[in-house]
Amino acid sequence: MPSEQPPFALAIDAMGGDAAPEVVLDGLELAAERHPSARFLLVGDEARVGGALARRKRAARACSLRHAPDAIPGDMKPTAALRVRGSSMRVAIDAVAAGEASGVVSAGNTGALMALAKIVIKTLPEIDRPALAAIGPSARGDVVLLDLGANVQCDARNLVEFAVMGDAFARAVLGLTNPSIGLLNVGSEELKGDDRVRHAAEVLRDSHIGAQFRGFVEGHDITAGTTDVVVTDGFTGNVALKTGEGALKLMRDLLRQVFTSSVPARLGYLLARPALDRLREWMDPRRYNGAILIGLNGVVVKSHGGTDALGFAHAVDVAMDMVTHRFNERIREGLARLSTPGPRIAADPR
Amino acid sequence: MPSEQPPFALAIDAMGGDAAPEVVLDGLELAAERHPSARFLLVGDEARVGGALARRKRAARACSLRHAPDAIPGDMKPTAALRVRGSSMRVAIDAVAAGEASGVVSAGNTGALMALAKIVIKTLPEIDRPALAAIGPSARGDVVLLDLGANVQCDARNLVEFAVMGDAFARAVLGLTNPSIGLLNVGSEELKGDDRVRHAAEVLRDSHIGAQFRGFVEGHDITAGTTDVVVTDGFTGNVALKTGEGALKLMRDLLRQVFTSSVPARLGYLLARPALDRLREWMDPRRYNGAILIGLNGVVVKSHGGTDALGFAHAVDVAMDMVTHRFNERIREGLARLSTPGPRIAADPR
Repeated sequence: MPSEQPPFALAIDAMGGDAAPEVVLDGLELAAERHPSARFLLVGDEARVGGALARRKRAARACSLRHAPDAIPGDMKPTAALRVRGSSMRVAIDAVAAGEASGVVSAGNTGALMALAKIVIKTLPEIDRPALAAIGPSARGDVVLLDLGANVQCDARNLVEFAVMGDAFARAVLGLTNPSIGLLNVGSEELKGDDRVRHAAEVLRDSHIGAQFRGFVEGHDITAGTTDVVVTDGFTGNVALKTGEGALKLMRDLLRQVFTSSVPARLGYLLARPALDRLREWMDPRRYNGAILIGLNGVVVKSHGGTDALGFAHAVDVAMDMVTHRFNERIREGLARLSTPGPRIAADPR
Repeated sequence: MPSEQPPFALAIDAMGGDAAPEVVLDGLELAAERHPSARFLLVGDEARVGGALARRKRAARACSLRHAPDAIPGDMKPTAALRVRGSSMRVAIDAVAAGEASGVVSAGNTGALMALAKIVIKTLPEIDRPALAAIGPSARGDVVLLDLGANVQCDARNLVEFAVMGDAFARAVLGLTNPSIGLLNVGSEELKGDDRVRHAAEVLRDSHIGAQFRGFVEGHDITAGTTDVVVTDGFTGNVALKTGEGALKLMRDLLRQVFTSSVPARLGYLLARPALDRLREWMDPRRYNGAILIGLNGVVVKSHGGTDALGFAHAVDVAMDMVTHRFNERIREGLARLSTPGPRIAADPR
C-alpha cells in the first residue's frame, strides 16, 4: 500500500448478496451517516446501480460509481470467478490492489472473494496464509474467532500467525489494549491435543504476546468469553462457529414454540417482551455480520449474503475500524516482533 | 465375550464421581426399578459402600458387592491409574474382561477409564481404534455424535469405522431401523474439506451403509438433526460438543437474566413457566448423560462426574440398551460387511 492515504476508504461491491444492489445501497446510506468523512468507491453495473444510488442522498454524496458490467453468481466456483475480469467484485478488488482504496466489502460469493483477494491483493509478505475471522457474542463481551475455514489444514506456524493477526484484530476492531488469547484444544492441560497445537502453544508462550497468551481453551470457553481471541485451524473453527450458531438457533426456535404453546405463555411473552427484545438485539446476527479475511495487503470484509441494510452497514463498520486503526500495520509490527521462526515452527501439516 | 449370558449385566464403579458412592447408589436405586431383572456387580470399598447399599432396598436386591480397596482420584493421570490394581474402576473393568459382566458404568476419571478399558477389555479385533460417542438434542430428535476426543488424530479408515459404529449405536440405543449418517465437514459440497474426509466419504458411499450415508454435513446440521449420526474426528467432535454446550449455556444464563430483570418479566416467567419447564426438561443435560466408549469387547459408559442420581440412572439405561440390543454383535456384523479396506482406506493421518 502507498504511504499516502488512498482516495477511497473502501471499495464496495454493489452487486454481491441476495438482494443486491438495493440492500447494499441501503446499507451504504446508513454507513455514510456513521462515517461522514469517508469516501466509498461503489462498483457495479451503472444502469442498475446509478438510478438507485441517486435516490439515496447520503450514499450518493459519499460514493463515486465505477462501472463493472458483470456480477459473480453465488454458486460460481472460485476458479471460474477468477476469469471474469469485468465483475463488480473483481473491479472493486482491483481498486484495492491499485492503492485507490484501503479495503473492500462484498456480500457476494465467499469462495470467489477469498480467491480473488488472495490473488489480486496478495498476502502480506510476512504471512504464510491469510485467515478468516469473525466476532461473536460471549458472556463477557465480544470474542474473536479465527480461522473459520480459509485453511482446512494448518500447521503450528499458521496457528501462531493467526494468534498475531487475532491480537491485531482485537486491538483494531474491539478496541482492546491487551487482548487475551487462547488456543482451541480438547482440554486445557499442557499435554492435551496433537503435536501441532502443543508446538504452537510453546512458540506463543515465548513470543512477544506471551503475556497475553492464556494457553489452551476448550469449545465452551468461546461463548464463556474466557479469552478475547480464540485461535484454531480452519476446519475446527468453521465447525465450531456453525455448531454454536446451530445451538443458538435451536434454542431460539424452541423458545418460539414455548411462547406460542398456550395463552398464559403468550401473555408471559408479552410481559417479558422488553427484556427479551434487549436479549434479541444483543444476540442479533446482524451485529456480528462480517467475516474478515486478514493477512492481505488490504482490508477484505465479507458480509453475509442474506443480511439486510443494518447488517451490511455493520460489515462496513468493521472494515472502517480496520482501516482507521491501521490494522495491517499492527499485524506487520506484530510479526516483526515474533522471534525468528526457524526450525521451531517448521511445517507439520495436520 | 463368552456366548452364554454373563451373570451380571453391568459392573458399576461405586467410587467414581464427585459425590460417590451416594449418588451412584441413588442412581442404582432408580436403575433397579427400571430394569427389574438386571443384576449389577457393584465394586467399591466394602466399609464405605456396604452400609449405604443396605439402606437402598431395590439396589441392595439387584446388586452384589465386590470389595476394591482403592479409588482413582479425578485428577490422576491415566498412566498412574493403570498401576492401581485394586481400584474400584479397575476391578469393575476386570469383571467385564473376565466375562462376568457385559459392560461397565463409571462416573470416575475419564482418561483413566478410557485407558483401562482399552488395555483390559481390549478393542474389537476388527476395529483400529475405539471412539467416544454421545447423544444430544436436535430439532428433529436425538442425534449421535462421535468421536468426541478418544482420537485427536484420525485417518479416513477411522472415520469409516466410526460411521459403522455410530450406525450400530443409533440402532441399539435410539431404536432406529435405518439411521441416516453424515460426515462433518466445512461445507456440504463434494469437493470441500481435506483428503481425509473426502476419502472417507467415497468409501462410505460404496459401503453397505451407503444408502444411509447423506454425505457431508456442517456444524449447524448437528442441532438441526439433518442426520441421526454425525461422524467426525476426536479433535473436531470434542470442540463441536463443547461449543454447542457452551452456546446453550450462554442462552440459558441470558434468559435467567431476562426473567429477573423486571417485575413484568418475572411475572411473564411465571405465566410461561409450565412451557419453559417442559423445554428445560427436554434439554436436561441429565437426559443426555453418558459418553460411550465404543469398539471394545464390552460396553463402557462414562457418566458425568457431577451428575445426580437421575443422570447416573440414565447412563445405566444407555449401557443396558447396548447390552440388551447386542450392540457389539451389530458392530461386528457391520464391519464384516464393509468392503475389504485395502489401499483405498490407507492411513492418511490428519
